[in-house]
Amino acid sequence: MSPHKIVIIGGGFAGLYAARALRKADASITLIDKRNHHLFQPLLYQVATGGLSPGDIAEPIRNILRGQKNCNVLLAEAEAVDVERRVVQLDDGELPYDTLLVCTGLQNQYFGHDEEWEPLAPGLKSLEDAVTIRRRFLMAFEMAEREEDPERRRQLLTFVIIGGGPTGVELAGTMAEMARKSLPRDFHRFTGADTRVILVEGGDRLLKAFPEELSESAKQQLASLGVEVMTDVRVNAITKDSVLLGEETLMTPNVYWAAGVGAGPMLASLGGELDRMGRVCVAPDCTLPGHPEVFVLGDCANLTDASGGAVPGVAQGAIQMGRYAAEVIKARMGNGVLPGPFVYNDKGMLATIGRSHGVGVVGDRKLTGFTAWFLWLFIHLVFLVGFDNQIIVFIQWTWAYLRYQQGARLITARYVSHENPRD
Amino acid sequence: MSPHKIVIIGGGFAGLYAARALRKADASITLIDKRNHHLFQPLLYQVATGGLSPGDIAEPIRNILRGQKNCNVLLAEAEAVDVERRVVQLDDGELPYDTLLVCTGLQNQYFGHDEEWEPLAPGLKSLEDAVTIRRRFLMAFEMAEREEDPERRRQLLTFVIIGGGPTGVELAGTMAEMARKSLPRDFHRFTGADTRVILVEGGDRLLKAFPEELSESAKQQLASLGVEVMTDVRVNAITKDSVLLGEETLMTPNVYWAAGVGAGPMLASLGGELDRMGRVCVAPDCTLPGHPEVFVLGDCANLTDASGGAVPGVAQGAIQMGRYAAEVIKARMGNGVLPGPFVYNDKGMLATIGRSHGVGVVGDRKLTGFTAWFLWLFIHLVFLVGFDNQIIVFIQWTWAYLRYQQGARLITARYVSHENPRD
Repeated sequence: MSPHKIVIIGGGFAGLYAARALRKADASITLIDKRNHHLFQPLLYQVATGGLSPGDIAEPIRNILRGQKNCNVLLAEAEAVDVERRVVQLDDGELPYDTLLVCTGLQNQYFGHDEEWEPLAPGLKSLEDAVTIRRRFLMAFEMAEREEDPERRRQLLTFVIIGGGPTGVELAGTMAEMARKSLPRDFHRFTGADTRVILVEGGDRLLKAFPEELSESAKQQLASLGVEVMTDVRVNAITKDSVLLGEETLMTPNVYWAAGVGAGPMLASLGGELDRMGRVCVAPDCTLPGHPEVFVLGDCANLTDASGGAVPGVAQGAIQMGRYAAEVIKARMGNGVLPGPFVYNDKGMLATIGRSHGVGVVGDRKLTGFTAWFLWLFIHLVFLVGFDNQIIVFIQWTWAYLRYQQGARLITARYVSHENPRD
Repeated sequence: MSPHKIVIIGGGFAGLYAARALRKADASITLIDKRNHHLFQPLLYQVATGGLSPGDIAEPIRNILRGQKNCNVLLAEAEAVDVERRVVQLDDGELPYDTLLVCTGLQNQYFGHDEEWEPLAPGLKSLEDAVTIRRRFLMAFEMAEREEDPERRRQLLTFVIIGGGPTGVELAGTMAEMARKSLPRDFHRFTGADTRVILVEGGDRLLKAFPEELSESAKQQLASLGVEVMTDVRVNAITKDSVLLGEETLMTPNVYWAAGVGAGPMLASLGGELDRMGRVCVAPDCTLPGHPEVFVLGDCANLTDASGGAVPGVAQGAIQMGRYAAEVIKARMGNGVLPGPFVYNDKGMLATIGRSHGVGVVGDRKLTGFTAWFLWLFIHLVFLVGFDNQIIVFIQWTWAYLRYQQGARLITARYVSHENPRD
């Protein structure tokens, strides 16, 4: 009898932790991903602002799973799933499964303006996204240094971040520290006071998943770094040189997107109910209703757990779901007891603001300022433990983060003529 | 009176060392480069093979020159020089000079097949080149893992490096170690024995700048790593799937170019004599004949020095020429004695082969094997000292090199469909 075939789509936190939790299972596991690396997404904003290099926060999936004999890694894109025939359709073939884990995560979404806005306002979901933002952010200063017209220079030095969730807050805080403090020291034509960093949120407060007083604290901490926070403001248009905020046009070529994410089109092929974001509404055991052999895990699953709370789209949620699915699969194969419905163990929420500020909730405690920042740093670094080379990666990332290296401030794309130097 | 205006075109070794040697000069220096970073080119092959990250071997020019009050850095491309009017023509304006230092280096050249061969056989002169080679090299293994046809799989695992100079030798040695030893451990469908690494040289021996016995030693050391060395073989055609070596067609999509470099078209605007490679034939003091205010330095200069030897196109040559030009300029400004003609101080030549082999000449001594490799490593790391953050960079690079990190094995470009996954 051929071993039980498990296919995992996606090498993010959910897929990778599931694969590792199944390392002793008598199964033939195939993990497919359209990229060759696992990405530590919580630190992606650091790459976008030149604090870390792409190689610091990504690790080839093959390396991570190298020692695991029952797992095969394929660089491939899953285009659809045929749940009746139990096959994953790849771009160049099919992959049959007995058990399927769908862990495809989310991607940037622009409220129906995807094609129009994506090239103008890059989001922050992949290494390529981060390198694009880094290039445009740094290039704006280079162009300002060459600009004779003071009005146009001010526009080049205006940075708008759309979306007041953790990604937007982290990006705005770091960009403000760089734009208003560290970077201008390297230039002659302007000072930090000539730069503006604006964070725009459509709702009435930042970090709406956090308690209200922390939203207020985040706003104050951002203000102390020089960020202008605008709430209750919608983005109505983005052009090459401007952004329309409510009814007001702001002239700037620098718009970054942290406002919306949604699931990719592949999930529709599963045939289950999708929510407004395109996520799959899963059963209490994280499976596709009617298909106990199909799990949907991590950000692309919509689950209100047994305790009555929605599982948040964060790394912890994905990790816990990945491990849970592995327990269920092992129990079905006769190894261990079938666990009850999935319950999210909320270890808290944290968001950093610049280099030494932040907000967080841990249990009943609300944290702000340096304490929140330090805990964020500590948890995110400790978090990594569990991968191969854990000590080396831990030391390297700690070192890179604490040193806040300048060397990662690279603009890597061929220099294009001055008319269109942003790409 | 406005200060003496010095314009330096190019932030490579020659330009950067000249700028730093002029840090106390009563002058207004502008260094322009079309990229924002200085690149430590001798380690570029390490990025191409995933041993180092781009950020490890590049440093923003602004950071390096941050403390230098008399120097301004501009991200700009010099399109031509008008030596009569003494202005550099940029893509969007002009820059006047009193003294000009042209340090533009060399670029890949394909024996008259530039447009046809460059997209098929990437060279190794920039970070972008290195990341392209890395992506294609790693992607070949990923594609082989998915390939059902054994014949096509063998083609995917065949790697051809064109050019037997130091770059070709270093690339072939490292690729062989990875292809035949370390990488196949991560895959299931093939072993190291299924891979081929072929180094092709048009002349009758490798490393023709080195003594003959070292060429022979290099060939043997490469053979011990599994590299097939072909000499006296010319490349007659390159297609998407094959390369025509002499009269023999070898089926492989993996061809890398280390065979030819030449100067860019900008140098012609200087109006001086150019050699076959497009380099400027300079006077004994590194200036353009008839224009003592124009220096041409580094790889893009053709100079037989006062001792009768041609100055080689290596980092040491560029550094020494950069410092020499600065001495001449300072003496002309009344600071110090005008030096005699430029004399190259040959400190030796070294080339590494894989992780612990190499060949070298230091003074009268010929080195091979581990000694040559270790000296190469030591010199290249010590060499870096002289930049800002020298200790940090030194520790970081030593660490990265010794550890030979796996994390840099990233394929970073959007995954494209299987029909054309190489770009």
